[in-house]
Amino acid sequence: MVKKLIEEITKKNAPVIAGLDPMLDYVPAHIQQKAFEEYGETLEGAAEAIWQFNKGITDAICDLVPAVKPQVAMYEQFGVPGVQAFHKTVSYCKEKGLIVIGDVKRGDIGSTSAAYATGHLGKVHVGSKSYYGFDEDFITVNPYLGSDGINPFLDVCNEENKGIFVLVKTSNPSSGEFQDKTFDGMPLYELVARKVVEWGAGCMDGDYSNVGCVIGATYPEMGKALRKILPHNYILVPGYGAQGGTAEDLKEYFNDDGLGAIVSSSRGIIAAYKQEKYSKFGEENYADASRQAVIDMIEDINSVL
Amino acid sequence: MVKKLIEEITKKNAPVIAGLDPMLDYVPAHIQQKAFEEYGETLEGAAEAIWQFNKGITDAICDLVPAVKPQVAMYEQFGVPGVQAFHKTVSYCKEKGLIVIGDVKRGDIGSTSAAYATGHLGKVHVGSKSYYGFDEDFITVNPYLGSDGINPFLDVCNEENKGIFVLVKTSNPSSGEFQDKTFDGMPLYELVARKVVEWGAGCMDGDYSNVGCVIGATYPEMGKALRKILPHNYILVPGYGAQGGTAEDLKEYFNDDGLGAIVSSSRGIIAAYKQEKYSKFGEENYADASRQAVIDMIEDINSVL
Repeated sequence: MVKKLIEEITKKNAPVIAGLDPMLDYVPAHIQQKAFEEYGETLEGAAEAIWQFNKGITDAICDLVPAVKPQVAMYEQFGVPGVQAFHKTVSYCKEKGLIVIGDVKRGDIGSTSAAYATGHLGKVHVGSKSYYGFDEDFITVNPYLGSDGINPFLDVCNEENKGIFVLVKTSNPSSGEFQDKTFDGMPLYELVARKVVEWGAGCMDGDYSNVGCVIGATYPEMGKALRKILPHNYILVPGYGAQGGTAEDLKEYFNDDGLGAIVSSSRGIIAAYKQEKYSKFGEENYADASRQAVIDMIEDINSVL
Repeated sequence: MVKKLIEEITKKNAPVIAGLDPMLDYVPAHIQQKAFEEYGETLEGAAEAIWQFNKGITDAICDLVPAVKPQVAMYEQFGVPGVQAFHKTVSYCKEKGLIVIGDVKRGDIGSTSAAYATGHLGKVHVGSKSYYGFDEDFITVNPYLGSDGINPFLDVCNEENKGIFVLVKTSNPSSGEFQDKTFDGMPLYELVARKVVEWGAGCMDGDYSNVGCVIGATYPEMGKALRKILPHNYILVPGYGAQGGTAEDLKEYFNDDGLGAIVSSSRGIIAAYKQEKYSKFGEENYADASRQAVIDMIEDINSVL
């Protein structure tokens, strides 16, 4: 799957992911109103609103970006109808030729991780049939439980040609509380990164592994150091834009071949119309604002490569 | 919410949780058959089967246990219909007077953890209305992202009188890979435990905090040491039974007041009818086998207190 990701990045000349993380506040009034007219001010109405919002953005940007990253929490907040909207979003984006990275940050003991791997990347057996549950192309995974919580994901990645991104160094302010703790001279995030190399070695797909990692744009020094440790693992980089990471910060996350990293922005793209810079588009044309924000982001990232 | 949990534990004299983690393999043939007749061999059929299976077990054990712990991964593997079955299970168990601990192990950057907290413990605003998404009483939470990934859960716990259990030392074989790493003489799990004390201090509900932690039954020495560090935090103890933890191992997880810990068993209860010990019940009477397994487990745990 990473090979396909690289093909799409290269074709579109855009090492960029749009994070589809809809808050109801981001959804323009006319979309909310229409959804509420049909379904009432209910969870179903909210789910319809975020789905229509996503659809508009996806249609507007699908020729520009290789991949989208829906954050499942933003859907789970609306209960079952929200999860339904997540599934519809995943399916629709795939129909549009986009690679879908489910930002689900799952991870548990072995048998439970196996169920997550089945549900998000693989197929489940029901009697004599088998079905995909959510069928993302990649998902993000939490490493706190160690190798036997990760191995079931690796198995499914190999069976299905799919991929994972393991949290190494997250973009949030307090990520250092545990991740930066140092033992025998090595911070925890580096130990996890070295495990990612190990886990990824059995999942090569061309020059890169289907096992990548997450390193926040907000910690460029660590990104630089980790890049060298993980030469064959893609880095998914959140934290660009709204969280404070700049293109200049991101240069060192890439390998010399211009590959090896993909930068994600959520709010900066999907709520672009709310920024002064894109306010001329107006709320009605929110998707055009998102398109312009994507064009600007791609240009910004490519300017440092 | 921990006060209510303690009341129920005391009333039922059972510091025991039943883990509702259904695999389709556990569901007796007659239930699967009926579900498949109605819905076909589909995800809907599988979801109906696990829901009916859960319902049977819940009816059989709800007077014995204070709480149940559905593992959401087992539902997510069946996609949206599975998540629907999770929601139905949560609601039904609450109707039956059970406290529901959603074993979801969520955790992310602040804004995303806020969405998870909303979806699983709190209410989401839709226009002028607000709704509970999944409405568990407690959920399990992953600490890898540090305090700002935990704080949103604390806020919702305080608003809604709900609770969380933070992963400290998990029951799986490779949990030590990261959790046991020692810096400045302190293993990571202990550092997390000390943070749990800090996080929990603002969420007291009687003598205990609504912020508890997860410590596997499979590491009794660590459980003993951690008990002293966390005097006011409930310990959710997985790993009893099928994973290898024994009642004798668990003694030290409790405080001198006989409180402070609650022991979870999943397979050992819900798939009891498959064990030789309970085979006399037969597949048709799987729920009676589960009831007997719960009675035996409560007796076993209470024998060491």
